Amino acid sequence: MSKIPVAILGATGSVGQRFLSLLENHPWFEVVALAASDRSVGQKYASACRWILAEPMPEFAREMVLTAAAPEVFEAKIVFSALPTEQAREIEPQFASAGVAVCSNAAAFRREADVPLLLPEVNPDHIALVRHQREKRGWRGCILTNPNCTSTGLTVALKALQDAFGLKKAFVVSLQALSGAGYPGVSSLDMIDNVIPNIGGEEEKVEWEPRKMLGALGADGVELADLRLSAHTNRVAVIDGHIVCVSVELARQATPAEAAQAFAAYQAPLAARNLPSAPRPVMVVREESDRPQPRLDRLTGKGMTTLVGRIRPDPLLHLKFVTLSHNTIRGAAGGSIFNAELLVQAGLL
Amino acid sequence: MSKIPVAILGATGSVGQRFLSLLENHPWFEVVALAASDRSVGQKYASACRWILAEPMPEFAREMVLTAAAPEVFEAKIVFSALPTEQAREIEPQFASAGVAVCSNAAAFRREADVPLLLPEVNPDHIALVRHQREKRGWRGCILTNPNCTSTGLTVALKALQDAFGLKKAFVVSLQALSGAGYPGVSSLDMIDNVIPNIGGEEEKVEWEPRKMLGALGADGVELADLRLSAHTNRVAVIDGHIVCVSVELARQATPAEAAQAFAAYQAPLAARNLPSAPRPVMVVREESDRPQPRLDRLTGKGMTTLVGRIRPDPLLHLKFVTLSHNTIRGAAGGSIFNAELLVQAGLL
Amino acid sequence: MSKIPVAILGATGSVGQRFLSLLENHPWFEVVALAASDRSVGQKYASACRWILAEPMPEFAREMVLTAAAPEVFEAKIVFSALPTEQAREIEPQFASAGVAVCSNAAAFRREADVPLLLPEVNPDHIALVRHQREKRGWRGCILTNPNCTSTGLTVALKALQDAFGLKKAFVVSLQALSGAGYPGVSSLDMIDNVIPNIGGEEEKVEWEPRKMLGALGADGVELADLRLSAHTNRVAVIDGHIVCVSVELARQATPAEAAQAFAAYQAPLAARNLPSAPRPVMVVREESDRPQPRLDRLTGKGMTTLVGRIRPDPLLHLKFVTLSHNTIRGAAGGSIFNAELLVQAGLL
Amino acid sequence: MSKIPVAILGATGSVGQRFLSLLENHPWFEVVALAASDRSVGQKYASACRWILAEPMPEFAREMVLTAAAPEVFEAKIVFSALPTEQAREIEPQFASAGVAVCSNAAAFRREADVPLLLPEVNPDHIALVRHQREKRGWRGCILTNPNCTSTGLTVALKALQDAFGLKKAFVVSLQALSGAGYPGVSSLDMIDNVIPNIGGEEEKVEWEPRKMLGALGADGVELADLRLSAHTNRVAVIDGHIVCVSVELARQATPAEAAQAFAAYQAPLAARNLPSAPRPVMVVREESDRPQPRLDRLTGKGMTTLVGRIRPDPLLHLKFVTLSHNTIRGAAGGSIFNAELLVQAGLL
Repeated sequence: MSKIPVAILGATGSVGQRFLSLLENHPWFEVVALAASDRSVGQKYASACRWILAEPMPEFAREMVLTAAAPEVFEAKIVFSALPTEQAREIEPQFASAGVAVCSNAAAFRREADVPLLLPEVNPDHIALVRHQREKRGWRGCILTNPNCTSTGLTVALKALQDAFGLKKAFVVSLQALSGAGYPGVSSLDMIDNVIPNIGGEEEKVEWEPRKMLGALGADGVELADLRLSAHTNRVAVIDGHIVCVSVELARQATPAEAAQAFAAYQAPLAARNLPSAPRPVMVVREESDRPQPRLDRLTGKGMTTLVGRIRPDPLLHLKFVTLSHNTIRGAAGGSIFNAELLVQAGLL
Repeated sequence: MSKIPVAILGATGSVGQRFLSLLENHPWFEVVALAASDRSVGQKYASACRWILAEPMPEFAREMVLTAAAPEVFEAKIVFSALPTEQAREIEPQFASAGVAVCSNAAAFRREADVPLLLPEVNPDHIALVRHQREKRGWRGCILTNPNCTSTGLTVALKALQDAFGLKKAFVVSLQALSGAGYPGVSSLDMIDNVIPNIGGEEEKVEWEPRKMLGALGADGVELADLRLSAHTNRVAVIDGHIVCVSVELARQATPAEAAQAFAAYQAPLAARNLPSAPRPVMVVREESDRPQPRLDRLTGKGMTTLVGRIRPDPLLHLKFVTLSHNTIRGAAGGSIFNAELLVQAGLL
Repeated sequence: MSKIPVAILGATGSVGQRFLSLLENHPWFEVVALAASDRSVGQKYASACRWILAEPMPEFAREMVLTAAAPEVFEAKIVFSALPTEQAREIEPQFASAGVAVCSNAAAFRREADVPLLLPEVNPDHIALVRHQREKRGWRGCILTNPNCTSTGLTVALKALQDAFGLKKAFVVSLQALSGAGYPGVSSLDMIDNVIPNIGGEEEKVEWEPRKMLGALGADGVELADLRLSAHTNRVAVIDGHIVCVSVELARQATPAEAAQAFAAYQAPLAARNLPSAPRPVMVVREESDRPQPRLDRLTGKGMTTLVGRIRPDPLLHLKFVTLSHNTIRGAAGGSIFNAELLVQAGLL
Repeated sequence: MSKIPVAILGATGSVGQRFLSLLENHPWFEVVALAASDRSVGQKYASACRWILAEPMPEFAREMVLTAAAPEVFEAKIVFSALPTEQAREIEPQFASAGVAVCSNAAAFRREADVPLLLPEVNPDHIALVRHQREKRGWRGCILTNPNCTSTGLTVALKALQDAFGLKKAFVVSLQALSGAGYPGVSSLDMIDNVIPNIGGEEEKVEWEPRKMLGALGADGVELADLRLSAHTNRVAVIDGHIVCVSVELARQATPAEAAQAFAAYQAPLAARNLPSAPRPVMVVREESDRPQPRLDRLTGKGMTTLVGRIRPDPLLHLKFVTLSHNTIRGAAGGSIFNAELLVQAGLL
């Protein structure tokens, strides 16, 4: 059976590179086009791209000539978007309208009522919004989004608690890696011997996105979960892997051991469980007093697994714990690919 | 007028070095002895100490011969203790009993009802506990303690809010510097491209110490403040300066602007205001969206000032903000010296 | 065919962990024992070892009980030694005497005339020293050594030049990674925002070891190569991967392009070419102006390949270039395993 | 006596900020204008500048309004130039022609025969080139340059050797700090857990500039010193302070102890010795086996002193050693100011 032709928008950036790396040898998808900004169009990928991953640049990409990010330029059934928000807002609908499924890592459409904000191991049923979206907008294609990288691991962990105990409040503080800011991103003069106690626009996303993903899908779309979140976000000197310190108030009190059990036992809904990019396992609970740690644990489950550790009572709410998730794999490119797989399996492509 | 003779216990370690550096040219105190562990006794300071501060080793110390940490070995009216907790528990009372005032950075006696846990810009009146202590224990000397480095900046900030609005709850997450772990302390293999999401024993201190310092002094000692705290503590790749992300519930709601005003206007009580080590000013409010930052701001007010920034509403409690405090100056050696100054001025030496 | 039973001495340390990681699923070897220091003997590996690699601890090792490092304790035909020099000097001969082949990463025996100092892609013929060794010492086993981690990549690069143009002098300055110092090794307070311009004992090794490996094997052992080296060694804030800046004087002048060609064309001698751990390829020449870089390139060829870049004329000697080699894979554990494979293939086990 | 009015070109950048910081409270100079690029002209310095130094922004500068970099815009007798090379080439002569003395950190004119390349503690007599320059170019003002930051400390050390023993060859490898690349400069993704083994254009400067400074001033200008240099340059994760590993061949052999003595005894020529910015002392020799180190030693002598350590025999040439110099103080802004002081004292302003 022939593979599904896919393209990458924003292929030369930090997340774009992850898309290439993860799509090399993908069992279902074949990259047929790489789109980049105007000044790179016409160049070979290997010349135009400053590759920043430790994995080598995939061979298939080296000689590919960069194209413009427009639906008429190439034939792809799915495009993976690593575009900046402003460009995504303009370009992604052009593809959707032209019949292409856009699996986007950008924030532009995450809050639209008819656009699924998806983590297949959390809310695969939200994929059904694609039908509303097509009907409402007259698109033959569609736009699917994955959440912000910090919301990702956090939401997976919150989902396990929501299912097991119900969930009312979460207080979250992130220690975020540099790859999330793209390349060149943060200056080294700002990161050696330093912390930046803010990431612009991030806290609003972290306080809202989990509510959509944990909300119930009704006839009128997703009803936001009745969950209140407060977020502080920080940038630290780490290449990949976002740490989040979380305190939660549950609907019914649970011990740390019960929570650990709920995390470890959590499984993706059936619809997502056997997809090629499904995390195996979805969550890992670390028992050590000082884990998870970004450098040591971020590649667990090929970077798709959410790690949890240090589960303990919280004096103000119910429980405290720490999560770790790979921000450019599970939290970005890997997430968009996982979403695309769900779309294909749901017969919605 | 001649200066007061003082000694340093644990003089070769990370905090011991700060004591030396801060006591060079102190207007009231003169270092007459440096005590260290048995294996260094008898050596010159310059040979025995691996100096790790960017400021040069004070000239006065280079040729001083290290002594044992015992009251009969030297004549000092005040000893500054940078001893590990276990040693502090044993050695500090020997000095207090022998008539020496011990200004300690160790945790050993912080929770004792008759031992002041002091930040002179916060609770200088607690110094009165020294009288109870002497009476109860039959000591001619005394033990004064300063809080854990993370509690320090946090408590200064909370005090300004407590005075202005009352204070009910605080959720705090620290991003702590390496110098707090001493030397050699944390392995470089644990800190390059990494975060350690735990600091042993720290969370318990941060959840309790502010309550003592913010408590009222009554006839029976300090009544712990009716404040509930939850803490997560993390180690990050920063040399000096602890960042703390704080969310607070106040007794009466305040806007970020009102809180900023309360922080900026906060002054040390009169008893502490004019001491040599008093922070000038006590607090600085940074208006920028990404400050305070450890590398850029930790030396504000010679490392004695507490910085606050990013004051904004909190969706769960009332306000969010970030504090920064220099952990080995305000949070350790500088704090002990400031306490000693308060003791002298109070006529309790 | 059954696998050859092997053991690891010093199994819990930084290099010991690499041995485990590289021996998992090795086609020829099966780990039957893990030896550690007295205080860990009797504990399970998973409890006794603070695992510091990003790759997970191999499953086979978790439940293995640590043994003493003595030949009578377990049945292994080969032991891989990650012992400190002093212990290696005492313990390795015990194994060799008892009939075990010791493939050692320690420096203890590298300079012995009858002990091969081996890089199979450079001097596989030196393995013949094993016969002298057995005869002279009356051992049934033997000791093989691999060079210091900085000498490793350097010597591979020098060998390609020696073969093509002859070699007279080399000036080398290393920028070395932290994993070479073991765990906990270098304090984080010494590495954040810093360089340490010395590594004790390293310069002597780097100035001597390449001469033995590049020397000719004669009837009386190895004649040191007529090559003069000068080395400066530095520690920098890198986890894995040693950079070496090299300037060389050749026997006959070569252009950078000729040198690049010589590096790229260099192949391991036949004896080493098809061994399981042989680097594929032996060397990679990077054309970019700023490569090789440790974070991006150290895992080339599974960490066994030597990288070269920035080949350019040298105003004092003939050529300048930069090498990169993974210090705990090619430069330590991977090197010892590669040596063991050579021993087996040579029929000397 | 009133101070000499000075201005800073490129005032908002990394080196520009150092100029401001070092000129605050300068005994001879008063900053009357701050010039910046077009997009910042008209803004207040405090709003336009992202201040990156740990020292606070000088109060005098906060409210100053940025001007264009043109001689008719303000009245200054000296301008300090932190302009990029291309802009310096165009703008600096406009000031010189208009009667202003330009003390430049830019590379644009360093190689011009009639432009002094100055380190006052090394070659203050070269200031006399100013007369040739004025005559030849018809300028009332002039251009003075200071060398590249890596050449700076290196040349001070070489000068001490040249005077004492004569000097024939030097092999140098730098480990350079990030502040030399300006702000934002190097991406944090390129520096965490990494080394960049190249700095564009730097090696050519380091191989040539010391020869001009160590050359003799004759009737026809400076005769380049008969010294051959080879340089490798690297970027490492350090904020400030360039380490250089040096091996030298002297005209007459010296022992490490003799060299240490020559370094320690070296004094600036009389013309430079008592200037306000003169390093005190010019050089410091560290005896420890692992010093100098950037974080611990860069501020020696207020960042103007050159440090030397690890003096030992070199197997290829005569001696090996390590130098450290603060790259944005002695190696940039402090150097230009020191040059300006020399110009004033020489009566050439």
